[in-house]
Amino acid sequence: MQTLSHPTREQIRFESVLDALAHPVRLRVVRRLADGEELTCGTTLPDVPKSAASHHWRILRESGVLHARREGRTILHTLRREDLDARFPGLLEVVRNAVDADV
Amino acid sequence: MQTLSHPTREQIRFESVLDALAHPVRLRVVRRLADGEELTCGTTLPDVPKSAASHHWRILRESGVLHARREGRTILHTLRREDLDARFPGLLEVVRNAVDADV
Repeated sequence: MQTLSHPTREQIRFESVLDALAHPVRLRVVRRLADGEELTCGTTLPDVPKSAASHHWRILRESGVLHARREGRTILHTLRREDLDARFPGLLEVVRNAVDADV
Repeated sequence: MQTLSHPTREQIRFESVLDALAHPVRLRVVRRLADGEELTCGTTLPDVPKSAASHHWRILRESGVLHARREGRTILHTLRREDLDARFPGLLEVVRNAVDADV
């Protein structure tokens, strides 16, 4: 079973977070996570092909935007809010406002 | 002579701005522009090959992050601060703090 690796808080790079956020699908995911939702990879993006969805989740995890944990056969994702707020104060609020303004 | 096209304020896309910022060279440029500097493409990035530098300036211009104008044989760049503040309040401050914290 593949290991779900995560960067430590100190390892999170600003460029990598920006790159992870720079996609409409991933922005949509992060916006939902920002509401405190815990999202499963299987059901969150029904309109995205499975391989593409896996790619998006991995980018978000490896950049440090979200935390993933296995529960049985599914993977549950939560936002790394405390880490992101500590490293890049205000970023999540900017993202939330920008996504909401675009809806 | 190539036209320097710019998106209007309303055409600026959040994903495109994030993508433009998601590179250490471009972040460095934006951080300097944020101090109010007007930067020339020729002298700002002496350690970056010319073709790569041109690419970075174009990404920043086409995403709406900066404004470019010709003056003789050079191109001068300024940050589109008012447009970015209007569309994505707080983003430039987050960028400034993140880049400064990493120095």
